[in-house]
Amino acid sequence: MESQTSSETVKLAEYLFTRLKQLGVEAIHGVPGDYNLHLLDFVEPAGLLWVGNANELNAGYAADGYARIKGVGALITTYGVGELSAVNSIACAYTERAALVHIVGTPPRASQESRLNIHHTLGDGDYRHFAQMSSHVVAAQTNLVDPVTCAEQIDAILKQCIVHSRPVYIEVPMDMVAVPVLADRLRSEVSVIEPPRSPNHDAALTKVLERIYAAKQPLILVDGEARALGLIDGIHQLINSTKWPTFTTGFGKSLVDESLPNVHGVYNGGYADPAIKTFMDGADLIVCFGPHFSSTNSYQWSAIPKTDITICFTWSGIKVGNETFRDVLAKSALSQLLQQLDSSKFKTYSTDLSLPRSQILPFKDAPSGSKVAQAKFWRLLANFLRPGDVVLGETGTAAYGVREMLLPKHTHLFTSVTWLSIGYMLPAAQGAALAQRQLVASSQYHSLSSARTILVIGDGSFQMTVQELATIIRHKLDVVVFLINNDGYTIERCIHGLNQGYNDISRWKYLQAPSFFGAPKDAYTAEVRTYGDLEQVLGDKAMADGKGLRMVEVFMDRNDAPAGPLFDMIRKQESLQ
Amino acid sequence: MESQTSSETVKLAEYLFTRLKQLGVEAIHGVPGDYNLHLLDFVEPAGLLWVGNANELNAGYAADGYARIKGVGALITTYGVGELSAVNSIACAYTERAALVHIVGTPPRASQESRLNIHHTLGDGDYRHFAQMSSHVVAAQTNLVDPVTCAEQIDAILKQCIVHSRPVYIEVPMDMVAVPVLADRLRSEVSVIEPPRSPNHDAALTKVLERIYAAKQPLILVDGEARALGLIDGIHQLINSTKWPTFTTGFGKSLVDESLPNVHGVYNGGYADPAIKTFMDGADLIVCFGPHFSSTNSYQWSAIPKTDITICFTWSGIKVGNETFRDVLAKSALSQLLQQLDSSKFKTYSTDLSLPRSQILPFKDAPSGSKVAQAKFWRLLANFLRPGDVVLGETGTAAYGVREMLLPKHTHLFTSVTWLSIGYMLPAAQGAALAQRQLVASSQYHSLSSARTILVIGDGSFQMTVQELATIIRHKLDVVVFLINNDGYTIERCIHGLNQGYNDISRWKYLQAPSFFGAPKDAYTAEVRTYGDLEQVLGDKAMADGKGLRMVEVFMDRNDAPAGPLFDMIRKQESLQ
Repeated sequence: MESQTSSETVKLAEYLFTRLKQLGVEAIHGVPGDYNLHLLDFVEPAGLLWVGNANELNAGYAADGYARIKGVGALITTYGVGELSAVNSIACAYTERAALVHIVGTPPRASQESRLNIHHTLGDGDYRHFAQMSSHVVAAQTNLVDPVTCAEQIDAILKQCIVHSRPVYIEVPMDMVAVPVLADRLRSEVSVIEPPRSPNHDAALTKVLERIYAAKQPLILVDGEARALGLIDGIHQLINSTKWPTFTTGFGKSLVDESLPNVHGVYNGGYADPAIKTFMDGADLIVCFGPHFSSTNSYQWSAIPKTDITICFTWSGIKVGNETFRDVLAKSALSQLLQQLDSSKFKTYSTDLSLPRSQILPFKDAPSGSKVAQAKFWRLLANFLRPGDVVLGETGTAAYGVREMLLPKHTHLFTSVTWLSIGYMLPAAQGAALAQRQLVASSQYHSLSSARTILVIGDGSFQMTVQELATIIRHKLDVVVFLINNDGYTIERCIHGLNQGYNDISRWKYLQAPSFFGAPKDAYTAEVRTYGDLEQVLGDKAMADGKGLRMVEVFMDRNDAPAGPLFDMIRKQESLQ
Repeated sequence: MESQTSSETVKLAEYLFTRLKQLGVEAIHGVPGDYNLHLLDFVEPAGLLWVGNANELNAGYAADGYARIKGVGALITTYGVGELSAVNSIACAYTERAALVHIVGTPPRASQESRLNIHHTLGDGDYRHFAQMSSHVVAAQTNLVDPVTCAEQIDAILKQCIVHSRPVYIEVPMDMVAVPVLADRLRSEVSVIEPPRSPNHDAALTKVLERIYAAKQPLILVDGEARALGLIDGIHQLINSTKWPTFTTGFGKSLVDESLPNVHGVYNGGYADPAIKTFMDGADLIVCFGPHFSSTNSYQWSAIPKTDITICFTWSGIKVGNETFRDVLAKSALSQLLQQLDSSKFKTYSTDLSLPRSQILPFKDAPSGSKVAQAKFWRLLANFLRPGDVVLGETGTAAYGVREMLLPKHTHLFTSVTWLSIGYMLPAAQGAALAQRQLVASSQYHSLSSARTILVIGDGSFQMTVQELATIIRHKLDVVVFLINNDGYTIERCIHGLNQGYNDISRWKYLQAPSFFGAPKDAYTAEVRTYGDLEQVLGDKAMADGKGLRMVEVFMDRNDAPAGPLFDMIRKQESLQ
């Protein structure tokens, strides 16, 4: 073995946290536990904020929310009890492509090697169970047991995290936290060097251009993995240069600027407006970015474009019809496409295609004395939105409702489309609001000097992870919560068991939450039952421009849902009664 | 294949729930989710209570608490999102031997077989990830995909659950819920037939008796796995007939009747009273039941008896010194030992050995104006206890504190000793209180007509799983919560980071909890700062004899801990400042 001559060293924890900081991580979520306390000593000295969540599942969700806004998130848990509590959030990040670094503080190497019967183990001497359990839901794992190799291990796994935009799992034994490691690698950042172009690259591009130039009725479809693929800027260039009608999936919504005239909102397949459906059915080319065709995101597959007319930019390469050009990087292919695209050769549409677009509903169209209903609520709520807002629509009626909202530029929308673990959005709102604040503070947030995080969540979901409101309060995050009180799990009632007791939940006094969790006495709370109430609340400066946590309880019927699949399902359930 | 001629059938869900009921399960914990809704249709018709928890981790903890009181508990979650949220609770039950039946509602077989990209999957077409993850923390797994075999599968796995007193994992695909299965097996209950005696049985018993008759200074040590091994009645017979000094571990505390004069409380190894330590060190025989020698339960191994003088009744057989008689069943060996034991041949002690016993502290010894401190709190709180109470001491200072309390007969104590996942005890209190109420209602609870569940929990732990207070309220369970407000994670401060910010938590208005979570307006709450306050609260009839949730916030210093390891650790941390 060649021995290094460089002598400059840092402690392992310093190395790890420096690397995270270089990746743009400015805060670490998690919960202290005895096997990670020594590691936590190094968080704040590294210039990172320690968030300190109420439990690990919430911490994982929050770190995921942070990652989706800021690019990368980090979570620290303790061995066994902590990491297992978080594992559902890791699976969520894996499924929906959030770059999450999960660091687990583990027992000292000597305990592990001697199979000591210590707490937070199963008592069988086997210390590998939990890493094996996590292996199913992460892109890569590494165990930092050797000072000689651990710096390289960290660099390699962080690359995996960034490249795949998926969680990675790093074990740090307690006695490794402060071991010296060579610092020289820190001089350059962890960077992903693009490999030499695949031999398929040019062939793919030729095929793509052929299809584009031949198309008589082309359109663009943006799905949610386009974000993690790094395609957003390129997509906007394409939208602006072609002016082709552009749609998104639920997962892709907010990735493209809905204020552009050729952006038409979410294509919801079997539930689409007839004019849009007709246009889609007549298309001879769909340029699709970042496809994520799960049942929910694709409206039970009804929104998946026909393969033979589709070009897909995916993780595994470029697909043109049935042909896959493997290992062609989506981002560089799009970049080259934009360079080569000859605007004289592709279809241009007349300015008015008469395709409907998402609309805001003015309050004059909602009788002020009428009870708030799902049919109008979302398009009314859209009046409240401002550029740069983060909007989170929790799984349930909100997930479908937010898809109806016309979003201002630079809005970031969260709507779960595959993992769909209720309880995700409240902690995710904490993480997203923190990321948003940090980006604003460093002038990296669309040139905006302030922004809000707006959570819309049903009562059942709210109960799952409610304690993270306290973290929002403690860190003084600017979050507005619209709690939909529809007396139970309405999404489940839509699916089965309309009037079954198992879809009921405890009845809480929701608006007492800010006080209970320690908000200042003057924290804004309001109750909304009618459209008049809603208009008043949305227009209240204390709500719209206030700071910290604000909370609005919106009452809706328990068997009400936004138009679309849930609405149809609940009508069907009612017909079965 | 021989075809059955019997034609009587029941639906699969009916079969499963009938079996659970036969095992004494009267309530199922869990959370509805789309893949389990059809299964839930059958819960209440089967005569089982559906609890409906706020989230799955809490549901798992609650089912574990239920199991530890009632023998077996059951939990229903939904595929992926639900089961993974619960997996930490399953690991807890596995480690500390709670018999928990985890039933997961999974997607229809057709979706699984065709690798459909549906919600609650990782999107990779592989439906086996989550069962593989769970496999690490359960005694057995089964997947009910075949109507021909599923009844037998259920019977076999329930036997595994009972015999090992550990969780098992049952997958029920949605489309299997209502398939007809032959009902004939239901006529007899699932019973575990004791296998023929191991050839080792007589040899073991001979050795055990030899040791017992030869001993000059014998004693009995009862550890926590004695409960799941079914040894408790036999142990009491042994204690009563030998009158030998008897100690427990933390895990074993409350398994033996502390009102017996020869029962001396928890043996805490290196922290023991000198008289007890001397007696232990002089022992030439320790008869130990259900050993569970993890670091925390054994006071960092200092309380583990020396192998050469110890007889252990364990899961794998009887150990006499260094010799293991494998596959000798602990329960039948103890039963035979009791039959054969000749009282003229074993050591009898003089009535007064002068060994100290746990003591209640009278309030006259605690100045009423003084602030409540850990040194006296627990022995004062012991005044409050009544026969049949379930007492739960959450991990943290409470876990050590409750070990100081002299427990009345039939008290059931919960103190986590290996898994130590904070947040466990509050939901476990919900499950235990429900089990207790059901046992009282069916006159199976020590001939008592009422009983209370008393939870003592720190603020940090309370925040983890707080929403289960709402379940306690909704089901009108009789639970008294003593919340120790010591401003953060004191147990972590003891270990490391005495004054570090990461051991701080959000400050809540704890006594607003009952109101927020929907308790009646007159729900009892009180604040305790001094011993005078404590005496008054404990003597208040509305608190002691009230119904439903009662909550007391007890303020203590953040750097205070009961005598023992935590106390020593925090003094050491202070000396490092």
